[in-house]
Amino acid sequence: MKLDFKIKKEEKNTKARWGEFNFNGKVYETPMFMPVGTQATVKTLSPEEIKEMGAGIILSNTYHLWLRPGEDIVSRAGGLHQFMNYDGPILTDSGGFQVFSLAKPSDISEEGVVFKNHLNGDKLLLTPEKSIEIQNKLDSDIAMSFDECPPASASYTYLKESIERTLRWAKRGKMAHKNKNQMLFGIVQGGYYEDLRKFSATETVKLDFDGYSIGGVANDHESKEDMYKAFLYSTKYLPKEKLRYAMGIGEPIDIIEGVIRGVDLFDCVSPTRLARHGHAFTKYGKINLKNAKYKEDFTPISKDCDCYTCKSFTKAYIKHLINADESFGARLLSIHNIRFLISLTEEIREAIQSDSLKEYRECFLKNYYGDHYGKK
Amino acid sequence: MKLDFKIKKEEKNTKARWGEFNFNGKVYETPMFMPVGTQATVKTLSPEEIKEMGAGIILSNTYHLWLRPGEDIVSRAGGLHQFMNYDGPILTDSGGFQVFSLAKPSDISEEGVVFKNHLNGDKLLLTPEKSIEIQNKLDSDIAMSFDECPPASASYTYLKESIERTLRWAKRGKMAHKNKNQMLFGIVQGGYYEDLRKFSATETVKLDFDGYSIGGVANDHESKEDMYKAFLYSTKYLPKEKLRYAMGIGEPIDIIEGVIRGVDLFDCVSPTRLARHGHAFTKYGKINLKNAKYKEDFTPISKDCDCYTCKSFTKAYIKHLINADESFGARLLSIHNIRFLISLTEEIREAIQSDSLKEYRECFLKNYYGDHYGKK
Repeated sequence: MKLDFKIKKEEKNTKARWGEFNFNGKVYETPMFMPVGTQATVKTLSPEEIKEMGAGIILSNTYHLWLRPGEDIVSRAGGLHQFMNYDGPILTDSGGFQVFSLAKPSDISEEGVVFKNHLNGDKLLLTPEKSIEIQNKLDSDIAMSFDECPPASASYTYLKESIERTLRWAKRGKMAHKNKNQMLFGIVQGGYYEDLRKFSATETVKLDFDGYSIGGVANDHESKEDMYKAFLYSTKYLPKEKLRYAMGIGEPIDIIEGVIRGVDLFDCVSPTRLARHGHAFTKYGKINLKNAKYKEDFTPISKDCDCYTCKSFTKAYIKHLINADESFGARLLSIHNIRFLISLTEEIREAIQSDSLKEYRECFLKNYYGDHYGKK
Repeated sequence: MKLDFKIKKEEKNTKARWGEFNFNGKVYETPMFMPVGTQATVKTLSPEEIKEMGAGIILSNTYHLWLRPGEDIVSRAGGLHQFMNYDGPILTDSGGFQVFSLAKPSDISEEGVVFKNHLNGDKLLLTPEKSIEIQNKLDSDIAMSFDECPPASASYTYLKESIERTLRWAKRGKMAHKNKNQMLFGIVQGGYYEDLRKFSATETVKLDFDGYSIGGVANDHESKEDMYKAFLYSTKYLPKEKLRYAMGIGEPIDIIEGVIRGVDLFDCVSPTRLARHGHAFTKYGKINLKNAKYKEDFTPISKDCDCYTCKSFTKAYIKHLINADESFGARLLSIHNIRFLISLTEEIREAIQSDSLKEYRECFLKNYYGDHYGKK
């Protein structure tokens, strides 16, 4: 089922857009944060919990599902929706990000990427055609083109060659794409160079995808300013009427800055990963529930939060669960952290409607970073 | 809040009883299976899920909560109910079972038991008074007397001495018990000897507890027949009008045999422990979802089961979650397994009402053990 994306309003002072699309009889709004369900499960959570916290699109991972349980099993189950019992929209990544982190540079050829299966050490080859074929079978609603995701440290020359190959891969993937109910997104790369981002975006747009992703922005080593430039250098050359998705972005401030530069969709494993380590997002910054000061704190993580966790449990209890290695603790924090990012996008949408997104950002920054604000 | 237990019907052909009690404005029926929430959480599950599957009393563990987070923190949180947000009845064990498994025989004295804290190696002393004091602070609805739980291999002479000490401990614990809202149960020991069980039961009843537990039946080494004898040798000497609880019993057939011998309450970690290992109860015996034959089994664990898991997910999906080490798999199987044992007690109650419990047992055995029935 293809999403029929419409822009409802553009913010006056920024490039932010408030949009919506229909899926399965339900209206979903953008900007949107998409929880990640790597192995066909958003870690610790049920589909009902995910929907209750206001989630729309969720992500799943082509590489992981290819290896386990295998795309044919998911296909015979009736596709990812039926397999995991989620009736909201599902997006799959291309598997590229995982594969490149397992491959050596010498394993990358025109054909595709050779790498070792992280579960059993077998040699595997992932090609643009294979990635699309797997995603076709998984039957997600949005598939990603197979792209090279070069490290932040890659040289200008390498990046240029890589973009050109990624463009040829995008073309091959588009040719291989057979699932008529599935949208296919192209991916813009180019590091922090405007001319490379421009080239990548312009040439990818010529292939006419259903939407566009911005890759290479979630790498570890860039400065925030570089990341934000990469957002801008990409959206600038993308058609207004199509969805734009910044891959792997989940820090609250990065979502706000992305929206300001015209991005609609974000995803990140951070809310569930932070949860497993005992961390919770709050308006006043992240807190670590392992900290001794929460031992007898019988208040919720945030008294303004409308999530199940904050309505029912105290910091002291969640701290106890995390200390005792009880997975219900990770579950409660996952609910809170995902709801936090979804609430953030809800507030962002309101700020777009009242043309006050920059004021919203200032207010958010002061609360979130407190005394450190401006010093970071 | 004390439970006002009433027997609604006694089965004609067995010693089984159908009973009820009120708690917090709700009626609960016995025989009852009580899920275990060792560390103030029934592993992976929310309080709402526990209630949705028809649970009544849940268990929590005095030893574990004493060490972490500490009974004073739970008390300052408002007691266990508020701490873990469960408004159904809560039973706490005495900590004895855990402590005895950590102690050497030489560490047992008239005063109590010396043992090593399993978290940090510190030497600790648990006495009857201390166990009751902790449980008073945890503010469970039913507390257990501190008893010695001798190994199945203990000699008659040792057992007799142990029962006499346990009786002195029971007296001391009763003296120390200060929480007027909390019921206190005495514990019957005595291995598989009728005279010892009779002595233990008769003397414990003289101390006039709110209910009685049957200990020493969940040990590893006895035969099923011995276990069932120990049930009978205990209930025979217990007052009819009070609740009887067989500690640590959770095999379906053992619950049925316990009820037949007049037991009302059962608990066991088995449904959640089996879940973590990928096992599910079914009418036709336990199944192991790790088995390759479930790879493409797109049917629920049991099509007759009314649990959330069976209504929404297939064996193939749950197998995938277990294989991929995703805790949502253990959560789904915990829901199913606990619901299975609760359903079993619901069917047992119906069989008591129609005086057909022995027929129910025959039918259960044939389904559950199939060809192996009679050979075990």
